[in-house]
Amino acid sequence: MTTPTDPPAHEEHSRREDDLLERIAAIVGRRTIPRGEVHVGDDAAVLEPFVGQALISTDIAVLGVHLDAELFPLEDLGYKAVASAVSDLAAMGGRPRGAVVAVTSPPGTDLEELHRGIADAAAMTNCPIVGGDLARGRDVAVAVTVFGECPGRGAVLRSGARAGDQILVTGPLGRSAAGLRRRRAGARLDDELVVAHRRPWPRLAEGLAARASGVHAMMDLSDGIGIDLHRMADASGVGFELSEVPVAEGATLDEALNGGEDYELVMTCADVGRLSLIFADRGLRRPIVIGRIHEDPAVRTFAGRPFERTGFQHQF
Amino acid sequence: MTTPTDPPAHEEHSRREDDLLERIAAIVGRRTIPRGEVHVGDDAAVLEPFVGQALISTDIAVLGVHLDAELFPLEDLGYKAVASAVSDLAAMGGRPRGAVVAVTSPPGTDLEELHRGIADAAAMTNCPIVGGDLARGRDVAVAVTVFGECPGRGAVLRSGARAGDQILVTGPLGRSAAGLRRRRAGARLDDELVVAHRRPWPRLAEGLAARASGVHAMMDLSDGIGIDLHRMADASGVGFELSEVPVAEGATLDEALNGGEDYELVMTCADVGRLSLIFADRGLRRPIVIGRIHEDPAVRTFAGRPFERTGFQHQF
Repeated sequence: MTTPTDPPAHEEHSRREDDLLERIAAIVGRRTIPRGEVHVGDDAAVLEPFVGQALISTDIAVLGVHLDAELFPLEDLGYKAVASAVSDLAAMGGRPRGAVVAVTSPPGTDLEELHRGIADAAAMTNCPIVGGDLARGRDVAVAVTVFGECPGRGAVLRSGARAGDQILVTGPLGRSAAGLRRRRAGARLDDELVVAHRRPWPRLAEGLAARASGVHAMMDLSDGIGIDLHRMADASGVGFELSEVPVAEGATLDEALNGGEDYELVMTCADVGRLSLIFADRGLRRPIVIGRIHEDPAVRTFAGRPFERTGFQHQF
Repeated sequence: MTTPTDPPAHEEHSRREDDLLERIAAIVGRRTIPRGEVHVGDDAAVLEPFVGQALISTDIAVLGVHLDAELFPLEDLGYKAVASAVSDLAAMGGRPRGAVVAVTSPPGTDLEELHRGIADAAAMTNCPIVGGDLARGRDVAVAVTVFGECPGRGAVLRSGARAGDQILVTGPLGRSAAGLRRRRAGARLDDELVVAHRRPWPRLAEGLAARASGVHAMMDLSDGIGIDLHRMADASGVGFELSEVPVAEGATLDEALNGGEDYELVMTCADVGRLSLIFADRGLRRPIVIGRIHEDPAVRTFAGRPFERTGFQHQF
């Protein structure tokens, strides 16, 4: 877009913007672009046809809101924004095809560092960055939109949970929140739990395996199971009885329940044996049963007691 | 994403966010969602298969940078962000399939007004809003990502201009910049040129017609022909000789050259007769020849004189 309240710019400015865009394109660009595709540099990116359903999701990360600049390097903001969005594709059982990144920043922001984090997450999830936009703003904010494809049986929604289903998660919870707590207490950036917070890993392989096994409902734990499981139950019109919540080593029960950004998947299915077999066959960790779906939407319990909505939430 | 620097939130906050998201979904949501599609409410939106190539583009609009809050209502920011992104699809000869919207805002922002503008642009361009994200920030910033499809002959790139091609635009230029000038001088919000600034119209029908006619290169004039034509020439490895620039009624030559946000399309082709016939057949205004492509990339002239890069540019 143009910037009508800017002073009209001159050759130097336009060159400067175009040069910066080229440097950023070199950081995020893939060396090999599939034949027939156009990534950065045109009005829109052009991708070869998607197989099956198209999946789209968008996520924003704001410096000072989603990342404490005193504790973490700027590249973590870029990494986490991409990982969070890609995790939404994992939660549908999809496969990433690409992402675009829109960034606002004040003058003096190290946009190249930010985009190195973006490029790291893109490389780790095999999700090429195919376009972007930059604008001035007071905040450093990164809006990432990912798109993916879902061949085969179709995307797994969060609304498909059925009475009697077992509820499972792909791993123990609370690692990210524990890492944040440890960093605040002075732990190094390469501490194992701090890394879990800085470099969350979208469960793409687990999402594909879960879809292949025919799970009824699935979502990613981005805001904490204390809120996300309620959302799944709301969408499905059911209740749940949680029997246990697996707490990651080094984390507290509160962090496991209310910490976000673990990006483990929660899913429900009728046949845990089949699910476990498919996960094992693919070399994935066995999912953990944490409870069961109840037909009454008013039933929401953990270890037999009422389980209220908690978890991190944006405030407006 | 979670907000690790937020205080842990309680039931009231989570309900408040979920309620706000529901009100916004009602504003931007379509009454009829195609069978098999899922828009807002799941981890990712699910769209039925795209026909042919997939097109993706993202654009950010920041209040105070892209829109003067003293002169224009907040809904214009949402409208313009969507229109600007959809215009990128028009510029490839594509058809919109959907958009997602990521918004940052400080407390007290009228997010419903902002989303009414977003919904207006989505309705006018037949581009459903299928998802979004909200975060706190100091700026009101709207990042819109649109995706479209391009059946038939494939997307038209800006890199395809060939020596000897005629250069055309879909209409006279400068209306948006003239509208901004008039509004600054006190014109009403419903003044015709002010409306051209507030409610730009992506040239989707023109883009489809141009693709059907086999134009060699195309792009939208978002930053002004004074910079955008250079970008097309750079991408194509050619120069150009501009003979005339059509100035819209009420605009100045400077506004026609350097004003952005007109979103007219510029294209190059070898057969102007065929192009005009196809436009006429579809009831579209006849494109205007403004010059010709030169084989030497160093040749960049307007009425025989050197034509330097100008136009609006973001500054970093």
